[in-house]
Amino acid sequence: MRIELPREVERLGAVRFGGLQKVFELDSGLKGPPTDEQFSTMYQIPYEALYEIEKDMAIIVPVRNERLKLVEGVLCGIPHPCLIIVVSNSQRQPVDRFTMEKDSLETYCRFVKKHALIAHQKDPLLAKAFQEAGYTSILRQNGEIRDGKAEGMIVGTILAWLAGKKYVGFVDADNYFPGSVEEYIREYAAGFVISRSPYAMVRIAWHSKPKIAESKLFFRKWGRTSANTNRLLNRLISYYHGFETELIKTGNAGEHALTVDLARYLDYSAGYSIEPYHIINLIEKFGGINESPFPDVMKDGVEIFQIESRNPHLHEAGDKEHVNEMSYVAMQVIYHSPVCPERLKREILREMVLRKFLSTKEKPPRPHRFPALTSIKAESFLKNIASAPYERLITEGLL
Amino acid sequence: MRIELPREVERLGAVRFGGLQKVFELDSGLKGPPTDEQFSTMYQIPYEALYEIEKDMAIIVPVRNERLKLVEGVLCGIPHPCLIIVVSNSQRQPVDRFTMEKDSLETYCRFVKKHALIAHQKDPLLAKAFQEAGYTSILRQNGEIRDGKAEGMIVGTILAWLAGKKYVGFVDADNYFPGSVEEYIREYAAGFVISRSPYAMVRIAWHSKPKIAESKLFFRKWGRTSANTNRLLNRLISYYHGFETELIKTGNAGEHALTVDLARYLDYSAGYSIEPYHIINLIEKFGGINESPFPDVMKDGVEIFQIESRNPHLHEAGDKEHVNEMSYVAMQVIYHSPVCPERLKREILREMVLRKFLSTKEKPPRPHRFPALTSIKAESFLKNIASAPYERLITEGLL
Repeated sequence: MRIELPREVERLGAVRFGGLQKVFELDSGLKGPPTDEQFSTMYQIPYEALYEIEKDMAIIVPVRNERLKLVEGVLCGIPHPCLIIVVSNSQRQPVDRFTMEKDSLETYCRFVKKHALIAHQKDPLLAKAFQEAGYTSILRQNGEIRDGKAEGMIVGTILAWLAGKKYVGFVDADNYFPGSVEEYIREYAAGFVISRSPYAMVRIAWHSKPKIAESKLFFRKWGRTSANTNRLLNRLISYYHGFETELIKTGNAGEHALTVDLARYLDYSAGYSIEPYHIINLIEKFGGINESPFPDVMKDGVEIFQIESRNPHLHEAGDKEHVNEMSYVAMQVIYHSPVCPERLKREILREMVLRKFLSTKEKPPRPHRFPALTSIKAESFLKNIASAPYERLITEGLL
Repeated sequence: MRIELPREVERLGAVRFGGLQKVFELDSGLKGPPTDEQFSTMYQIPYEALYEIEKDMAIIVPVRNERLKLVEGVLCGIPHPCLIIVVSNSQRQPVDRFTMEKDSLETYCRFVKKHALIAHQKDPLLAKAFQEAGYTSILRQNGEIRDGKAEGMIVGTILAWLAGKKYVGFVDADNYFPGSVEEYIREYAAGFVISRSPYAMVRIAWHSKPKIAESKLFFRKWGRTSANTNRLLNRLISYYHGFETELIKTGNAGEHALTVDLARYLDYSAGYSIEPYHIINLIEKFGGINESPFPDVMKDGVEIFQIESRNPHLHEAGDKEHVNEMSYVAMQVIYHSPVCPERLKREILREMVLRKFLSTKEKPPRPHRFPALTSIKAESFLKNIASAPYERLITEGLL
């Protein structure tokens, strides 16, 4: 992969936000002879370097009733060295879709000769393990793990951590192009190759998103939701800097990856607010505005990479409600953050009313939150899931 | 890349047609420790092996007034070790699109630090070089090189050969997904890794081709043209074998690659008939039905690989006429082949009339043909293009 250096950087406390990086070659080859790259503004990241990162990376695929054909395509795009972790919240009745997914994954793994993990989000063993770790915010009153993609992502992150992986990346199960799944993962790896801190995050900005307009494809650059979320996040950073910025382009980046060390220190927010909340929570915890609960991280710093993918993003079409919901919850997490200045709060409120999310008298709700995963102890968690088939794969080091 | 063995093979004389091969992993990693793969039905082709082939491969991109954004995306999908050869037949007036393409390619090459070739199909130097080589079938009466993609492909093949490359692969300039361009090229390389003959060809069958139907995407597996061409080619092979076969799935494969040795021995057919004619001409020359003009090739054999790509093929939409034309010319080259049995000829004629390509009294035209490139001598060709900017790149071995 050949990728440019971020041309701009915004620093807020210990957090270093890199500007959007453009990709010039999806495959830049193997390591060449050493050259004088001291003043180069471009990284040539050889395949070997990506490979080394991928060996330590788990790719988490949250699944919920997606068509198996699509999921199989996604699997095929995941580079071999990566550990695949499927966290399914698919229905089990009247048709047991989870069993179908499991079968399909097992067949795939037999063909490609590697092990993978698959867990159902409603597995009572997992619920019990979270319960005993005191991590109850992920549980419903009845003791089950809550529905939702954020919850599945947390389950996957924990499994990746237990399996000893250093990086977790997320890809959606409804992507039509295996090649773009592969591209996202290679970009995650590229970010971690470049990164100098153990606390790093890579967020993908889609090159474009084809829309069907008048029986033709039109390649839109920014969805309305993304544009809105990015604008508000940039306002927040501008407020602290006194300089206007447009640097944040990945406020809603579903495609993202983190070092496991960073993933364990972050708080999470439910539903579509998980991605914009990453940025908010990083500013809250490491932005130097409030005291950091993890002073060690402050020393190393946190690096955010934003990479513009080359492939258009073509996935199963969402509905309009979903789009509005994304916009609304992104505004909620910004609004409720202690680092959100009053002026921005008022602006967000006005916009919520204008877009009819709220009446003038209401206050916006606050999305459900999950604290950092640091309270979870590996040994006890593993003991609780000892009878799950994937536990053996983890403890026997087969992954 | 992890790819299955062809499960079926059809042999006709020295030609070995492999059945469609499915891809299981786009990226299967680096070379692992040696394993006992004696009875494996799957090839794990490590990145290094693809890389070695790609170093000897030229990727030819025929361009004709495509949008630059699209062409730039295609370039970005071409793996670094491959030589890029753009053969443009774009307009030069009132806007000189060729100069724009040249600028764009040069900028790209500066960023990715490699040399590439770009030539215009109407370059009088090229025309003169063909003229002096006695290869006049590519020329119009006025001495210019003819219009057409097949002609551009021949020009590209000659340049690849002059540059000392062992393989030529073709990709279209109107592909929306750089990731699928990359996939095709990796599949070309995979075929050549597997191949044991210096005379090999790789043809891609698209996994699917998204169509817009009622404002939604529908993933069609086979277009009507492909289905028709494949059926007729399979009928031809079945005739000689006495067993019905459905093996040929890539009769119209625009995405294909050849060893330069094979490319130089084949005849070519103009327009959309170039791809089905590959198969016809292989049977004519090496199928053991007529005496082969190249007995050396008969000894080594010719291998055809058909690989099913994983990414859907999404390109600029063609019109209906184009689709009919493709079907019609494919029938023409089969009809006019000396290896086409009378029975199949009658059937093709009937279908042409039925589909209103012909009246009952007419005979189908025969597409323009180009003989094998073996008559062209490198030294004289290079001398003729000595003043072209790309000649220096070739003779100085910079590619």
